[in-house]
Amino acid sequence: MLDVLSPIRFIENQVEVLDQRLLPKHVSWISIHTYQEMVSAIANMALRGAPAIGVAGAFATALGVRTIADHPDFYSRLKQIISEITAARPTAVNLAWGCEQVRLAVQGSVSPADRVSKAFEAAERIRLDDIHRCQQIGQYGANLIQDGDQILTICNAGALATAGYGTALGVIRHAFSAGKKLHVWVSETRPRLQGAKLTVFELKTLGIPHTLITDNMAGHLMASGKISKVIVGADRIAANGDTANKIGTYGLAVLAHYHQIPFYVAAPESTIDAQCPHGQSIPLEYRSDSEILEIQDQPITLPGTPVMNPAFDVTPVELITAFITEKGIRRHGT
Amino acid sequence: MLDVLSPIRFIENQVEVLDQRLLPKHVSWISIHTYQEMVSAIANMALRGAPAIGVAGAFATALGVRTIADHPDFYSRLKQIISEITAARPTAVNLAWGCEQVRLAVQGSVSPADRVSKAFEAAERIRLDDIHRCQQIGQYGANLIQDGDQILTICNAGALATAGYGTALGVIRHAFSAGKKLHVWVSETRPRLQGAKLTVFELKTLGIPHTLITDNMAGHLMASGKISKVIVGADRIAANGDTANKIGTYGLAVLAHYHQIPFYVAAPESTIDAQCPHGQSIPLEYRSDSEILEIQDQPITLPGTPVMNPAFDVTPVELITAFITEKGIRRHGT
Repeated sequence: MLDVLSPIRFIENQVEVLDQRLLPKHVSWISIHTYQEMVSAIANMALRGAPAIGVAGAFATALGVRTIADHPDFYSRLKQIISEITAARPTAVNLAWGCEQVRLAVQGSVSPADRVSKAFEAAERIRLDDIHRCQQIGQYGANLIQDGDQILTICNAGALATAGYGTALGVIRHAFSAGKKLHVWVSETRPRLQGAKLTVFELKTLGIPHTLITDNMAGHLMASGKISKVIVGADRIAANGDTANKIGTYGLAVLAHYHQIPFYVAAPESTIDAQCPHGQSIPLEYRSDSEILEIQDQPITLPGTPVMNPAFDVTPVELITAFITEKGIRRHGT
Repeated sequence: MLDVLSPIRFIENQVEVLDQRLLPKHVSWISIHTYQEMVSAIANMALRGAPAIGVAGAFATALGVRTIADHPDFYSRLKQIISEITAARPTAVNLAWGCEQVRLAVQGSVSPADRVSKAFEAAERIRLDDIHRCQQIGQYGANLIQDGDQILTICNAGALATAGYGTALGVIRHAFSAGKKLHVWVSETRPRLQGAKLTVFELKTLGIPHTLITDNMAGHLMASGKISKVIVGADRIAANGDTANKIGTYGLAVLAHYHQIPFYVAAPESTIDAQCPHGQSIPLEYRSDSEILEIQDQPITLPGTPVMNPAFDVTPVELITAFITEKGIRRHGT
C-alpha cells in the first residue's frame, strides 16, 4: 500500500516517478533517465507537492551529476544544472533545498564514480528522511486531533505530495491509525482538482472516512458547525511564518478565523525559507490559462476568455493557529 | 442582443425556454407545451435563476390553466398544479410568487377562454415587469458604482437569470452603459459552472471587460487589492434580510467583510419572503451527487466517493452592506 502512495522510487539505480496526472484512474510509473526528464516531470506536474518536489530535485541533481561526473568544469556545470532544475517551479522552496543537499554531498569528491554514488546516496537518504520526518509530523500532529474531529483539507498534502507518508494527511492518517474517530472533508481544489483526484484516492486507499466538496462550500460547512479543524500543507514558509500554499488556502484561513476554527499548517522544516522575511517576498507561480478554461481537456467557457491563474496564495501567520513540523508544534510567537 | 439573453419568450401563444445547459456553445430554444414540460425545464435547470424561475412559474401556471380551463373543479385542480410546479425547486421564493400572481389573475373567471387569456396575459405581464424591475435595480445600483471599480460576482445573476436584464449584472451593465469604467471578476461557480458558462457569455455579448477565476481565488484577489466591490443576486431573502443565494456566496461575504469590501445583494422585491423570519427558515436545496463527481459528464474522482451538494447557502444580513431592489437602496437596519 505504501508503494502505491509513493510519488518517486529508486530501484536498481533506476529513478521512477508515479504519473499523478493519471490518478485516480491509472497507476502508471514514468522511468526517468536524465535530469531534464525530471525537470519536465516537475514542470508538467506528473509529480507535485513541495516535499516530493524536494526529493525529485535531489534525484534530478544526482542524475545531473551522473551526466557530468567526469566533466573538467564539474562544479560550475553542476551549478548550472541546479539552476535549471530549480527553475522548473518557483514557489516550493524544498526544490532548491533538495538540490543543495546533493550538491553538498558531492562537494570535494574528485572521482567520477564517487561523485555519482555519493549523489544518489544523498538523494535516496533525502527520500527516506522525508518519510521519517512526515511520520514525526504525523505523530506530533495526531496529539492535536480529538475523537469526532471533522477535518477540512485542501489540495493534496499527503503521501503523494511527499516521499510517501504526507504532511497534513500524515497527521490525519497517524491519528486514524491510533484509533481516533475522524472524518475528512476534501476540497476538490480547482483548477487541477488535486483534492478530488489525489486526496480522495489516498483516503480511500487508507480506509479513512471522507466527503468530497467543491471549494466554495467550505464557508457553508463551517457556518453549519460541520468543521472542527482545518489542516493544510505548505509550499514555502517565510521566516516570519507567512505561508504559501495552494490557491484557496488563504480563503479557508480567513473563514476558519471568522468561525473560530483552529487552522494548522503541517510541513517539514525544509519548507521554511529563512531568506524570505515575509509572505510578500515569496514568488508565486502563475500557471497556464488552459487550467481555467478547460477541465480534463474539455472547454468550460468561451474560447479566449481572459483568466487569472495563480497556483498559490499566502496566508499571513496571524491566521495560523500552529505549525506542525517534525520538531513539534510551533505556535505563532513561540 | 436582448433576445439572445432572454431565458424565456412568449411568441404567438408559444412558450419557449432557452436551454442554458448548452450555453455558451449552443443557443437552442425548447418549445414548452404543458406545465409538466416547464416543471422539467425548471427542475433540470434548462432555465434557472430566481427571477427567471418566477416568470417560468407564471407561464407554467398559465399552461396548467389551459389544460384544466373547463374542468368542473378548476380551482382545486389549479391549486394541485401549482403545488407540483413549486416543488420543482425549493429555495427560490419567486417560483411560488409567479404561480400565485397567475392564480390571482384568473380568480373569479368562469369562462374557460377568459381563464386562459387572463392567465397568459398575467404571465407575460410578469415577464415584462421583471425586465422593467431589473432595469430599475440597474439604475439604482449604478449609482453605487465608481469609475475604476473591480467587481466580483458569483454564479449568474444576469439577463439569463431573470426575464432578460439581470440583477447583479443588471447593475453592472447599467453602470457600464452609463460610461463608467469597470472590470468584472467572474467566479466560475462549481459545481455547475454558471459563472464560466453564463456570466462570461453575457459579459462577452455586452462587451463588458471581465476575467474568469476559480472560486477559491477570491480571497487572494481581495488580499491583493484587486476587488473593490462584490455584487451578487439572491434566491430568497428572509424578512430580517438573511439571504439565500448560490453556494459560495456566504464565503465571499465573509471574505469581503474581512477585507472591508462592500458586499451588495441585487434582487427584485419579489425575492423577499415575509413568511421566512430569518435565514434558518429558508429551505436549502441539495442536488445530485453527480454534479460533484462529474464535470461535463466526465468523472473527476473515484466512482462512489461520498459527496455533499448544497446548491445554496445563507448569508446573514450583518454581512450585507446593502440591498439593491427596484425600489432603491436598502441598507441593513434602515
